Amino acid sequence: MLAEFSIFPLGKGVSLSTYVGKVLDIVDKSGLDYKLTSMGTIIEGDFTKVMSLIAKCHKAVLKDCNRVITNIKIDDKKGAKGAMTKKVKSVEKIVGRKLKK
Amino acid sequence: MLAEFSIFPLGKGVSLSTYVGKVLDIVDKSGLDYKLTSMGTIIEGDFTKVMSLIAKCHKAVLKDCNRVITNIKIDDKKGAKGAMTKKVKSVEKIVGRKLKK
Amino acid sequence: MLAEFSIFPLGKGVSLSTYVGKVLDIVDKSGLDYKLTSMGTIIEGDFTKVMSLIAKCHKAVLKDCNRVITNIKIDDKKGAKGAMTKKVKSVEKIVGRKLKK
Amino acid sequence: MLAEFSIFPLGKGVSLSTYVGKVLDIVDKSGLDYKLTSMGTIIEGDFTKVMSLIAKCHKAVLKDCNRVITNIKIDDKKGAKGAMTKKVKSVEKIVGRKLKK
Repeated sequence: MLAEFSIFPLGKGVSLSTYVGKVLDIVDKSGLDYKLTSMGTIIEGDFTKVMSLIAKCHKAVLKDCNRVITNIKIDDKKGAKGAMTKKVKSVEKIVGRKLKK
Repeated sequence: MLAEFSIFPLGKGVSLSTYVGKVLDIVDKSGLDYKLTSMGTIIEGDFTKVMSLIAKCHKAVLKDCNRVITNIKIDDKKGAKGAMTKKVKSVEKIVGRKLKK
Repeated sequence: MLAEFSIFPLGKGVSLSTYVGKVLDIVDKSGLDYKLTSMGTIIEGDFTKVMSLIAKCHKAVLKDCNRVITNIKIDDKKGAKGAMTKKVKSVEKIVGRKLKK
Repeated sequence: MLAEFSIFPLGKGVSLSTYVGKVLDIVDKSGLDYKLTSMGTIIEGDFTKVMSLIAKCHKAVLKDCNRVITNIKIDDKKGAKGAMTKKVKSVEKIVGRKLKK
């Protein structure tokens, strides 16, 4: 399963890198495959493990804040493995040229 | 905590009421406070209970489908209770007139 | 077309009702059908009108802030009219009982 | 401004690469900076240009489908340029090691 999430603490200024850093430290140490983008973090893995990891990140940010907005988008395709790279490659194949990724 | 979610099975036609019906049956029986809108379902409750309920709904839809897209938006404000109705009322108070809700 | 959106100014504290109030004042005066929920605002109408309205709201909030996060979810079904109420009713019909809405 | 979007046609099977390919062809030819990920496409540019491009993509997919779900997340920070790469680098700097990206 693939899931992308982003966590926004409210009332903590406009620069949130410290909080995103805390989240990515947790994600990077989790052992699950992931990718950090400028708009969120994508994780691939078993449904329960992925959701537990996101919950852990959400709670870590909430510990230091009074209000947190977390967005999660799940793409759950039966039998899909390695979708994080396969999906992008299959789009490039259809377009017929290299894309920015 | 408030969370809004929506679940889209892919490859199952354009009318999804059957799947949404299955989800709402689960939500309605859960005992958690909720509200069905035309764009999703809002649930209020403890973080773990809310997330478990959404996971249950996601899995129920996935049982009959090969690919499911689930969007979750969490608004977690410390100490907030009854936010499902309070938030709307406080906006109406600021605007100074009745709003459609 | 249906679209749900929410706008979060960052660095403006944890209570955002003033900003949401400003947005809803614009939406309410737009003439488009809408519904305010605790998690966002749903608008129904022509694609271009709906998107222009959301852009107007986004810019109104950005005027007073340095960073704004706006989420938009579009459900565009050909020929659908009155979907804001029809979708909810059709789910109730399938579940076979009144739901919270 | 940064915006991430994803477009899901309903009733068109579980493999959507053909539609995503059509979208990416439009994005790649637009001249705006972008990045394709496994969960969406991130675009950086002026608000109006970015939103017009997303609208164009949405309509291109809808032409061949009866129902389309489009998600857009906007991160609009005044004066931010090159945020697509800067945001990721600043997180790496805080975590203090290379991250998957």
